[in-house]
Amino acid sequence: MVGMTPLSPGDQLADPPSSRLPADHPGVNELFALLAYGEVTAFYRLTEEAKMAPDLRGRISMASMAAAEMAHYELLHDALESRGVDVVPTISKYASALDGYHRLTTPSTWLEALVKTYIGDALAADFYLEIADVLPDDVADVVRAVMAQTGHSQFVVAEVRAAVTKSTKQRSRLALWSRRLLGEAITQAQYVLAEHDELVDLVISKTDGLTQLAGFFDRLQRTHDERIRELGLA
Amino acid sequence: MVGMTPLSPGDQLADPPSSRLPADHPGVNELFALLAYGEVTAFYRLTEEAKMAPDLRGRISMASMAAAEMAHYELLHDALESRGVDVVPTISKYASALDGYHRLTTPSTWLEALVKTYIGDALAADFYLEIADVLPDDVADVVRAVMAQTGHSQFVVAEVRAAVTKSTKQRSRLALWSRRLLGEAITQAQYVLAEHDELVDLVISKTDGLTQLAGFFDRLQRTHDERIRELGLA
Repeated sequence: MVGMTPLSPGDQLADPPSSRLPADHPGVNELFALLAYGEVTAFYRLTEEAKMAPDLRGRISMASMAAAEMAHYELLHDALESRGVDVVPTISKYASALDGYHRLTTPSTWLEALVKTYIGDALAADFYLEIADVLPDDVADVVRAVMAQTGHSQFVVAEVRAAVTKSTKQRSRLALWSRRLLGEAITQAQYVLAEHDELVDLVISKTDGLTQLAGFFDRLQRTHDERIRELGLA
Repeated sequence: MVGMTPLSPGDQLADPPSSRLPADHPGVNELFALLAYGEVTAFYRLTEEAKMAPDLRGRISMASMAAAEMAHYELLHDALESRGVDVVPTISKYASALDGYHRLTTPSTWLEALVKTYIGDALAADFYLEIADVLPDDVADVVRAVMAQTGHSQFVVAEVRAAVTKSTKQRSRLALWSRRLLGEAITQAQYVLAEHDELVDLVISKTDGLTQLAGFFDRLQRTHDERIRELGLA
């Protein structure tokens, strides 16, 4: 997360501790499972997409990012295991949504791969931040530990900015690509929520549930726009 | 290294500190570069070979191992950088030997991939152990830190043993495969040594140079035989 634009304090859910969910809320296991499968899929996708890297430096950067995803996975795995969950079968439930996202957003160039990496990392971080505040303390600690290790995607910014400064056509193409990434991510997120009531409970854990869910996606859009500016695609 | 058979104390080079090489020995940078490129290549190969995994559990185990290789790489990268080395061009020199090893030992089944992972990890550990004792203290510390993080390949033992207990044919095939892995590794190691005098200096840093180099390969063979027994392939 170093250098990334976090949600501004006003955007965050500032629940008093009393409105936190109980640690045994069934949504917590589902959330960890979703995130854990997401890390494994991200690992394999980053490694696959790294084949488009023009040089060894790029392949090493992608490998470091992929390794960071597995470090996140280990944290989530340990948290799930300590909650008595049989990890692999539980996380497999999220395969179709997450594999679907990656299949529908297969990059065709190295720059597209870089933008996808950055946007994906940022969206995951937004998502972690959004939910951390309503989670019970020990669960929020896991989420924050995962977040604290993010930030390997910063190498992307310099490379993408350099490319789009030289080419307006490249900028338009990548701007379009980044909108598509957000669109597919939201589609898959809605699909996951529709199938898993426990997760919806986590997201809309306050009184005005539906309004809040709309606000959740609005905030994702807003922070996405900030990342687009960071990458020089605005 | 947890659970692996280390070289027995008598096998190790028990140099008094006075016979240690100087920290600015040109072979040290070359050694770190060789190891660093080896970690990156291993990362990509493990990830590629993980496609043969029969299930998500296998893919996760391989991803964890690959991530560990990148953690080793980061240590070596930092050590090289602190020694004023331009990392990426320097490590690229070892691409042909290491890529060659992997190209010549592409597994054709999941069990072959598992055995390769285990044998490769063990050979690298042997190599690290062999050289750590003649290195200057701060350099040996880097090598030991890298070694301390190895051991993710233990999941292999149970799976391979189970498979070869059920099938004598499988055992013969995998025993042959493991001999080929060692053979190719030694061929490539000799090729690397022939091209890099500074590395030979590291290995034969004592009086009876040539005898010692032969002993070095003998010891690799002997510890390899122990691993073969561990895997149930003897």
